Amino acid sequence: MFTDQVKKQLEDIVGEKNVAASNASKLAYSYDATPQFQSLPDAVVSPKTTQEIVEIMKICNKHKIPIVPRGSGTNLSAGTTPIDGGIVLLFKHMNNILEIDENNLTITTQPGVNTLQLITEVEKLGLFYPPDPSSMKISQIGGNINENSGGLRGLKYGVTRDYVMGLEVVLPNGDIIRTGGKLAKDVAGYDLTRLFVGSEGTLGIVTEITLKLLPLPETKKTMLALYEDLHAAAQTVSKILSNRIIPTTLEFLDQPTLKVVEDFSNIGLPTDVKAVLLIEQDGDSQSVDRDIHKMAEICRENQAVQVDVAKSPEEAEALTTARRSALSALARLKPTTILEDATVPRSEIANMVEAISQIAEKYEVDICTFGHAGDGNLHPTCLTDVRDSEEIHRVEKAFEEIFEKAVELGGTITGEHGVGAMKADYLHLKLGEAGIDAMKNIKKAFDPNNIMNPGKIFAKNSPKRVVVSQS
Amino acid sequence: MFTDQVKKQLEDIVGEKNVAASNASKLAYSYDATPQFQSLPDAVVSPKTTQEIVEIMKICNKHKIPIVPRGSGTNLSAGTTPIDGGIVLLFKHMNNILEIDENNLTITTQPGVNTLQLITEVEKLGLFYPPDPSSMKISQIGGNINENSGGLRGLKYGVTRDYVMGLEVVLPNGDIIRTGGKLAKDVAGYDLTRLFVGSEGTLGIVTEITLKLLPLPETKKTMLALYEDLHAAAQTVSKILSNRIIPTTLEFLDQPTLKVVEDFSNIGLPTDVKAVLLIEQDGDSQSVDRDIHKMAEICRENQAVQVDVAKSPEEAEALTTARRSALSALARLKPTTILEDATVPRSEIANMVEAISQIAEKYEVDICTFGHAGDGNLHPTCLTDVRDSEEIHRVEKAFEEIFEKAVELGGTITGEHGVGAMKADYLHLKLGEAGIDAMKNIKKAFDPNNIMNPGKIFAKNSPKRVVVSQS
Repeated sequence: MFTDQVKKQLEDIVGEKNVAASNASKLAYSYDATPQFQSLPDAVVSPKTTQEIVEIMKICNKHKIPIVPRGSGTNLSAGTTPIDGGIVLLFKHMNNILEIDENNLTITTQPGVNTLQLITEVEKLGLFYPPDPSSMKISQIGGNINENSGGLRGLKYGVTRDYVMGLEVVLPNGDIIRTGGKLAKDVAGYDLTRLFVGSEGTLGIVTEITLKLLPLPETKKTMLALYEDLHAAAQTVSKILSNRIIPTTLEFLDQPTLKVVEDFSNIGLPTDVKAVLLIEQDGDSQSVDRDIHKMAEICRENQAVQVDVAKSPEEAEALTTARRSALSALARLKPTTILEDATVPRSEIANMVEAISQIAEKYEVDICTFGHAGDGNLHPTCLTDVRDSEEIHRVEKAFEEIFEKAVELGGTITGEHGVGAMKADYLHLKLGEAGIDAMKNIKKAFDPNNIMNPGKIFAKNSPKRVVVSQS
Repeated sequence: MFTDQVKKQLEDIVGEKNVAASNASKLAYSYDATPQFQSLPDAVVSPKTTQEIVEIMKICNKHKIPIVPRGSGTNLSAGTTPIDGGIVLLFKHMNNILEIDENNLTITTQPGVNTLQLITEVEKLGLFYPPDPSSMKISQIGGNINENSGGLRGLKYGVTRDYVMGLEVVLPNGDIIRTGGKLAKDVAGYDLTRLFVGSEGTLGIVTEITLKLLPLPETKKTMLALYEDLHAAAQTVSKILSNRIIPTTLEFLDQPTLKVVEDFSNIGLPTDVKAVLLIEQDGDSQSVDRDIHKMAEICRENQAVQVDVAKSPEEAEALTTARRSALSALARLKPTTILEDATVPRSEIANMVEAISQIAEKYEVDICTFGHAGDGNLHPTCLTDVRDSEEIHRVEKAFEEIFEKAVELGGTITGEHGVGAMKADYLHLKLGEAGIDAMKNIKKAFDPNNIMNPGKIFAKNSPKRVVVSQS
């Protein structure tokens, strides 16, 4: 339990000004970017070093106080809400890039570094860190590690996991372990590196990260294909991939999303068509030209009514920036925006888009769909109002059916946002009881007292969505 | 304990002819490709289905009988020797490719399929499965999964782990779990897929595998750069990578290795130089030409005395095949060949090559070095005689020092062969006690009775190398 004595001990470790326990502070860290989840922590603690984290961990483990490691709180699955109280751990003092190693093509960094800053720093050296979650302007790399963040370039370049080479982690028992290293190959025991990536802060605290970098591609081109038919757009995605072309980005936006994104960004997006595909390819200029040409042809063969290649890097940048703003744009329309990330095999995109519209119609809810079509990772987004409990009930039923449909099509309940508190009740759809049991055993092996981000991933007997607690 | 009654039960499950317990059978599966490790199993069992494996698992778990899953036994870390007896599990009846999905670019297969056969089948469709361990003519894909096998194309394309999208696994308690799927993105809970990859058969039995495929590159070119100076060859490796070129293959062979490989393959390899680099690039023809030209230039700038680009695909194939035969070629020279796989960051290749020669000299042992220089993954290979216990003692001291040096340079004790029984005593060098404890806790969480491939990864109080037991 969190007592005054514990607070005093924490202050002794990190300094008084790094333990915030005012109502304002606690309120500020009582929620993340996920609607409908809020709960006050007991304190907000900002350590400066790994050693301080070890000391904090030992105290919390002894007194069974929850620890919720938090980056910038852009989480969309209530993964960083302190639903059982305890301390929220911030990394604002651990925000240095430690080394960019141009010989080994690696970057070593503390968890508190902003993702876009990291990307910008390596690009200055002609290097490339591909994972680009839409939240990258705000998010921290430590949060990306805990959530295994995706992004728009995932189709060609994979996700955060594919770039993590080594970690320093503080375990609940206070041990510091180092996994991997600047090593292209390492099979010395189990793959702890990837076990921690995407573990949502439930196994330990990541304190240092070594990431793989690539050479920066020579050039890139972006194009927009417009459709009068949703199915034709989805079909094009499959056709591009089965033609053995893997573009960097292959995004889908339906008409409702297009309208609000254009209204938000004012860059001249078409709003009179049913859907667009935003396609980007990078590489050396000859291959890029060839692929863009070929993809434009495939789009036209699959009923695109118009195909436009961006005329300048600025125009291309405006298009991808507009796409990244989709959530912010949609969030302006109604009081509550629920953005999901059900994911299916690429071949099932057309079926999934269709199923989402049917489900929205069935439950009479307002769902826009956009997302990483090339990954099979869609973002059906519901515009609703948390105060309308009757509508929220229908929204929940609709999303439950969307998750079930995704799994039925060979997919998963979450492609990139994590399970968090929000999707814990749906995890059995993907994993079955045996899969959940195996994961719970891993959790127990690392964290027998369940202090690391409790209430996430694994279901409690709590109501499905609304876990707003009041203290 | 393995009793006649247990044998009868196993026969009831898989049929009498699929339980072999003759001395000849037991002897045949008492060792793998690792010298100096031999121990008889109690029986050799060949199931036909996942359900049969569930039944076998339940019996073995009840009677605490070790199970050693085994592919083709090409393992080089004594990972598939039944050092505690029990049953060796073969996959000769589970050797079908189940599906090649050209829309999702995946292949789903049973574990007993031969690696080269799998590669050949997908290439017929213009698709590409990059991991190409030197043993691929013999090895099985299930073994590759358990060991996270590397190969010659690892520099550009990564290792087996990077291609595993989903698994079906039978756990020690008899549960069947399915991880991942045909999904580019999936963050529903912990990354069990990658936890099983490289777990050396110590956590469960992989019964079905879904792998990611790529479009087959348009073309490839191969070249050989000759050096009078080891250090210059190693230096070239770093220079190529720091020039932002990532070739498919970047292999190093020293003069002693060259001599025996040429003697074995007779393809006209130069044997009068101190070292060669074997370099391959693939992709579209323009990029390949540009990269090959640039790399040839870098080789020359770094004291290559000659650079030859293979004139035909056949000549190129002969070169890589010769490289793959290095172990077989070396094995002809002396009664015992010990091939190691200490791995360092790419930037440390030159230092590591130098350290290996110094250590070999210090202990007066005969060590050839070749391997995946671009990965930092070298294969110092000792030609010795297991019957000469005084020399073997020096060999062990030498390898111990090589492992220590690798770790000191930021590397690892094993890049692609696994820990097995052979390197268990050295694991603490890489992981420390805290890292080993974390892994042991995972092992206990899955396999509390320690029936899955016991004696591997984690050290017993056994002598370091010679674990030849007699029954």
